[in-house]
Amino acid sequence: MDAGEAATLPASVESLVVVHNVAKRHNVGTMVRSATAFGVSEIVLVGRRDFNAFGSHGSTSHLRFRHFHSLSQARHYLKEERNCDVCGVEITDGALSIADHPFRKSTAFLLGNEGTGLSAKECEICDFFVYIPQYGCGTASLNVTVAASIVLHHFGVWAGFPERSREGNKFTVAEKPVKQIRRNYCASSVESIVEERKSRQQSASIDIFEENGNNDSKLTNLLEALFDD
Amino acid sequence: MDAGEAATLPASVESLVVVHNVAKRHNVGTMVRSATAFGVSEIVLVGRRDFNAFGSHGSTSHLRFRHFHSLSQARHYLKEERNCDVCGVEITDGALSIADHPFRKSTAFLLGNEGTGLSAKECEICDFFVYIPQYGCGTASLNVTVAASIVLHHFGVWAGFPERSREGNKFTVAEKPVKQIRRNYCASSVESIVEERKSRQQSASIDIFEENGNNDSKLTNLLEALFDD
Repeated sequence: MDAGEAATLPASVESLVVVHNVAKRHNVGTMVRSATAFGVSEIVLVGRRDFNAFGSHGSTSHLRFRHFHSLSQARHYLKEERNCDVCGVEITDGALSIADHPFRKSTAFLLGNEGTGLSAKECEICDFFVYIPQYGCGTASLNVTVAASIVLHHFGVWAGFPERSREGNKFTVAEKPVKQIRRNYCASSVESIVEERKSRQQSASIDIFEENGNNDSKLTNLLEALFDD
Repeated sequence: MDAGEAATLPASVESLVVVHNVAKRHNVGTMVRSATAFGVSEIVLVGRRDFNAFGSHGSTSHLRFRHFHSLSQARHYLKEERNCDVCGVEITDGALSIADHPFRKSTAFLLGNEGTGLSAKECEICDFFVYIPQYGCGTASLNVTVAASIVLHHFGVWAGFPERSREGNKFTVAEKPVKQIRRNYCASSVESIVEERKSRQQSASIDIFEENGNNDSKLTNLLEALFDD
């Protein structure tokens, strides 16, 4: 956003990310790292509460998380309490190029599943869609974390977020301020213990990558060494 | 780039990526996927010839690869034969914001190592530097593939590359046209057999993720299932 545009924006424009159906939950970790880099205010988890912080480089503790059971509850919160537009990131007819910064106020970004993109139900809660133009012939789509990062970057540029200070060739990382009840888990109410247990049973088989988990730490360490970047 | 700017550009503006010291070579695979998405003409490998195609979704066959033994050889090629600017992607004093599109002609992008960024030797071959502004307090830097993707995306927007056609909610992938002597390996001359053997011996211990390799396919399959996206 040019300096001249800034005055016309609400004082507190913010970006949020809605995570509903990202199949490979390690993607959430890397997405969180980009989200903190680009000044995202909150991650909204819909459905499953647990997520995988692998790739986040510890940045999860710098972000607020919120949980809803359904997409419609999440939309109600985003529209009524946060006064957000809900923006689907998907290559659909009518989607607007991210390079044109088609924003008008605070925006919550809903990312599609890695394989199938946004479902019909997910599209229903979106006010509009953006896509990232591609020019080459070698891939049908981008990695979901790459797509999220490009979109969040552009929103920050459009919103004119103040740039973070630097130390040498790195941006300054703050002391860790946000307390979470349990790491990598968003517990927004007490009534959900039963649901949590159910969810944990369901996910036990693919939770081996959870940071600080008690599972296969050798494999986790191997993966950290090879994939953490 | 606005339509008005297009006329002032050389007819054949192109982007290239220089890979020298990316420590976790699986990052090259995902970077290649983004490179093909954003119309990169060529990947220039410096030093090691072999790379890891994990995460590339088969897009390596749509890209040209070239190999040089040294950074200075690579620079000579890029400057004299390709008439490129060499642009380092690094958060340095004097680096220009990628959002300002500080380009003037074909550009080869040199990415820093995941941990340490660009070395002094790498910086020496760069004509200028770009960085990606960050706004939040939670991470010192971006994942190297995310950073590369954002930069390549912006170059494509600036250069006005024509947008790829789509089929439904995906961009159209072409038939695989580019032949390589060996997959995931850039062999530019016959004289290098000895060097190749040396390099393969050195890298044997971390080659387990090479696509179609004969190593630990079970682990590769597990990783594909969990991480490929």
